[in-house]
Amino acid sequence: MKDKIVLILSGGMDSFTLLHRALNQNYEVDCLTFDYGQRHIKEIECARLACHENHLPSLQIKIANVESIFAASALTSDSIEMPHGSYQAESMQSTIVPNRNMLFISHAIAYAISKNIKQVWYGAHAGDHFIYPDCRPEFLSAMNAVAQICHTFPISVEAPFLNYSKAEIVKIGLDLGIDYSKTWTCYEGQDLACGKCGSCNERLEAFALNNIADPLTYQD
Amino acid sequence: MKDKIVLILSGGMDSFTLLHRALNQNYEVDCLTFDYGQRHIKEIECARLACHENHLPSLQIKIANVESIFAASALTSDSIEMPHGSYQAESMQSTIVPNRNMLFISHAIAYAISKNIKQVWYGAHAGDHFIYPDCRPEFLSAMNAVAQICHTFPISVEAPFLNYSKAEIVKIGLDLGIDYSKTWTCYEGQDLACGKCGSCNERLEAFALNNIADPLTYQD
Repeated sequence: MKDKIVLILSGGMDSFTLLHRALNQNYEVDCLTFDYGQRHIKEIECARLACHENHLPSLQIKIANVESIFAASALTSDSIEMPHGSYQAESMQSTIVPNRNMLFISHAIAYAISKNIKQVWYGAHAGDHFIYPDCRPEFLSAMNAVAQICHTFPISVEAPFLNYSKAEIVKIGLDLGIDYSKTWTCYEGQDLACGKCGSCNERLEAFALNNIADPLTYQD
Repeated sequence: MKDKIVLILSGGMDSFTLLHRALNQNYEVDCLTFDYGQRHIKEIECARLACHENHLPSLQIKIANVESIFAASALTSDSIEMPHGSYQAESMQSTIVPNRNMLFISHAIAYAISKNIKQVWYGAHAGDHFIYPDCRPEFLSAMNAVAQICHTFPISVEAPFLNYSKAEIVKIGLDLGIDYSKTWTCYEGQDLACGKCGSCNERLEAFALNNIADPLTYQD
């Protein structure tokens, strides 16, 4: 029997690659996608399409009261300007959505318990560590410690790409034949990717390091 | 300046007492109350009234997709019979709502960060330990470890009644002059408390141990 996992699928490149690798490794995957008032709502459509094309059980969860609980983030608030440039910049702090990953993982653990699934996966990777506390190895380790004892049986939380760069993730995806035009990365909520925000910058760099063009169409 | 806390207020006796003790100790309290599809929705009205009477900032958060993520609990599913009797019985396992407290605490931490508040309190007590993994000291300790590193500044998670029995909590509340007719405890979703479910049993025993009558009206 295949192992079952719950995967937090955003519709971005990392979780999309993780999904395809899990399917390639014969895991049975249930996907959870979160609507948390993100400007880049297009990623949800990418997640929905990925589940549909792969005939996967999926659930879209709408986080309530996001205007109160995620007040401080440029990703959810139109009143905070989206920073442009590199992820190494201090200005990227405004793209932190407070405690987002614990919130997502909490839902995923509850869902997993209800389905008798023992593993929750999410797409944190090495490029996230500098800005996002809830993508760091120590966060994953602490989440795992609490997930082991939050119910009558232990749940494990995995981030298989935790120590991979974005470029390494793209390489894995390209080797699997993934079509990255079916993912969404840009933090701005526009029809075409801006090519300027930290997220676009990181994506473009990952393709450049693989010496291959990003199949996505950009504004410029 | 007073310390600020976020308190998870259910409308039951424990969090209601914790609220009044915090106010008595001059904390500034923001309350979060969760609608998670519980049968005993009357507790939410008690929480709302407590916030209104004390002029407190409060937020009611509706957990989405509860039919999928909390499928296995008698508290949220009409298809699972509510067990009667003592909390020491194995049958009470069906009243576990999977990972409920991590889910609530995750929201509360996000809210706290957005308001620059550093403490989250919830009403776990010693009587919960036998049945509910997410009310045990080791869970609180592990939650705290992850709350310390989930953001750019640490959040602490406190359960001041963790080692108090229900009877001791009632004694604290009675000493504070709390009117317990303004709380709701019964797990059944009826107009009057059943007096038979584990939760009613525990409440009635706590009043009996204090040699005082419960001011609530019961069915029998």
